[in-house]
Amino acid sequence: MLSTKGYAVLTAGAALRPFSFDRHDVGATDVLITISHCGICHTDIHLARNEWGISTFPMVPGHEIVGTISQVGTAVKNLQVGDRVGVGCFVDSCRTCQACRQGEEQYCETGMLMTYGGRDKFGGITQGGYSTQIVVDENYVLKIPRALSSAGAAPLLCAGITTYSPLHHWGIGKDHKLGIVGLGGLGHIAVKIAKALGAEVTVLSSSEQKRDDALKLGATDFALTTHPQTFTKLQRHFHCILNTVSAPIDYNAYLNLLQTDGTMILVGVPDRPSPLAVFPLIFNRRRIAGSVIGGICETQEMLNFCADHHIESDIETISIEHVNEAYERVLKGDVRFRFVIDVASLR
Amino acid sequence: MLSTKGYAVLTAGAALRPFSFDRHDVGATDVLITISHCGICHTDIHLARNEWGISTFPMVPGHEIVGTISQVGTAVKNLQVGDRVGVGCFVDSCRTCQACRQGEEQYCETGMLMTYGGRDKFGGITQGGYSTQIVVDENYVLKIPRALSSAGAAPLLCAGITTYSPLHHWGIGKDHKLGIVGLGGLGHIAVKIAKALGAEVTVLSSSEQKRDDALKLGATDFALTTHPQTFTKLQRHFHCILNTVSAPIDYNAYLNLLQTDGTMILVGVPDRPSPLAVFPLIFNRRRIAGSVIGGICETQEMLNFCADHHIESDIETISIEHVNEAYERVLKGDVRFRFVIDVASLR
Repeated sequence: MLSTKGYAVLTAGAALRPFSFDRHDVGATDVLITISHCGICHTDIHLARNEWGISTFPMVPGHEIVGTISQVGTAVKNLQVGDRVGVGCFVDSCRTCQACRQGEEQYCETGMLMTYGGRDKFGGITQGGYSTQIVVDENYVLKIPRALSSAGAAPLLCAGITTYSPLHHWGIGKDHKLGIVGLGGLGHIAVKIAKALGAEVTVLSSSEQKRDDALKLGATDFALTTHPQTFTKLQRHFHCILNTVSAPIDYNAYLNLLQTDGTMILVGVPDRPSPLAVFPLIFNRRRIAGSVIGGICETQEMLNFCADHHIESDIETISIEHVNEAYERVLKGDVRFRFVIDVASLR
Repeated sequence: MLSTKGYAVLTAGAALRPFSFDRHDVGATDVLITISHCGICHTDIHLARNEWGISTFPMVPGHEIVGTISQVGTAVKNLQVGDRVGVGCFVDSCRTCQACRQGEEQYCETGMLMTYGGRDKFGGITQGGYSTQIVVDENYVLKIPRALSSAGAAPLLCAGITTYSPLHHWGIGKDHKLGIVGLGGLGHIAVKIAKALGAEVTVLSSSEQKRDDALKLGATDFALTTHPQTFTKLQRHFHCILNTVSAPIDYNAYLNLLQTDGTMILVGVPDRPSPLAVFPLIFNRRRIAGSVIGGICETQEMLNFCADHHIESDIETISIEHVNEAYERVLKGDVRFRFVIDVASLR
């Protein structure tokens, strides 16, 4: 077993604190990654507080992991010691169901093995990237392209793929008018990716303060959602809306902003259901859909795309001892746009 | 003006009673149709009771109209006196927007002119098919194929196209597992059409009494929605679910019955919104969509398809004086499966 240092939540809602635990040994197809950076995702906070009722404790959060390979198993084929790599939201899946065979492991029929809080094949609970090292099967490890910095790439492993995958799946590109709801960790990367895909992007936000950021990040337009005129002026305007906020919003009001056959894609997860009316859907044959992260192949494709288009996350790097303060600031929306833990501070 | 006899609702929720009114004269591109049959759609009842808050009174309902042309305007090209024709839910649209140009007049950007309760170009309010005759522009009139009876074809003008259009748009056919929720006026035609398209159909109903009907109509299977096991047994089973009921249902429970990338299509309109949770959408990238009737071209295609596949509505024909009783029976689900008014009883 590999003795590992990290920061953990010991009970639902408790502060994160230093925590020592064992990783399983490096198996034949595994690599050992010395972690250099880990992003703080809003999901970490939801799970640390057990807001979805699915958490197990003690929990070492973190699924936006970048580091360097320090050991490889005897059967590892495609990675070697010294490679700069990433790990996202899952570290295994069944590999045999239709979804896995199609490279969409995120929709694995028996459920992907989450990077933290999942029960692994040894019967243990997986622990995440707020820690010094992690052991992962090479098939679930991403290569970080040279053009990307480690800290700026870390959030791409969740926030990047969460927004790239639906934009790619729904074929968003030139001639598409895309609305992006929310300009936080997810939203700001979505703007960059959508812009690089050629879409005409409008950011929809409840905060006038985000206007300048939206335009600087590449949005063509900004609309204030607290302004009632927004919902009349933009009626039937968008081909697609990507909703990145994890607070409940009035789906019906936003659906009316879609053209015929338009889709609103949800990637944020509010803690409670929202009322859905049928009229905004049936008149104009609109759709509301959900999407979660992406498969391993698609995540690599996203990283390469980001490298080609000079896309990284805008980040604020912190030492691990400031992680609890960072959580509070995420909840207040006080970060532009992602906290990344410098894991060297853990050693 | 053309003096016309009908049955009307004079105030929201009042009983239907005999009513005389004037139709506008036959214009150059219009035809005058002597109505023989008109189906009773659940929408007629919603509107007669102003349950959606959009009704105008007095109202002559009816948008499942079949009759024979008794006069044609001077510029009519494609129809002649004696033709057996149908009129559905709308009788005009802007004809210039993208939707109209694409033959999807039901999504006309300025709104289609509803067969009843719409404001026409003369400033009058349109009146529907519970009446002896109607004047309609030839471009909004359907030809009834010889193989279809008038009474059995009438419900196809709304219930038929409402279910055919989404099944056609979403490409349902062989190798598709389709769930149809509800076995009423819409549902029973949906089963016949889906079966003819080659889909494997399961009817989902809260009434065990519908089992035999479902199987006789062509369903492969029947699942009782009051049985909790239905929602575990059929998890991730369907490619598509067509929800035909106009009472609120638990969308989240039904979404879990869809495979990855599956769509639940809503064609019934409940009188209030239902809670939508995000997890059933994001895990498996599922969608929920709406669809309303179909365009004129597609409605003709549907009628021809039904003629080719010997599909008519199962009906109970009534005299106009029993229309109020029929409304009560529709609300109780006591009809197999559609009431059709024999309009000869009005003369």
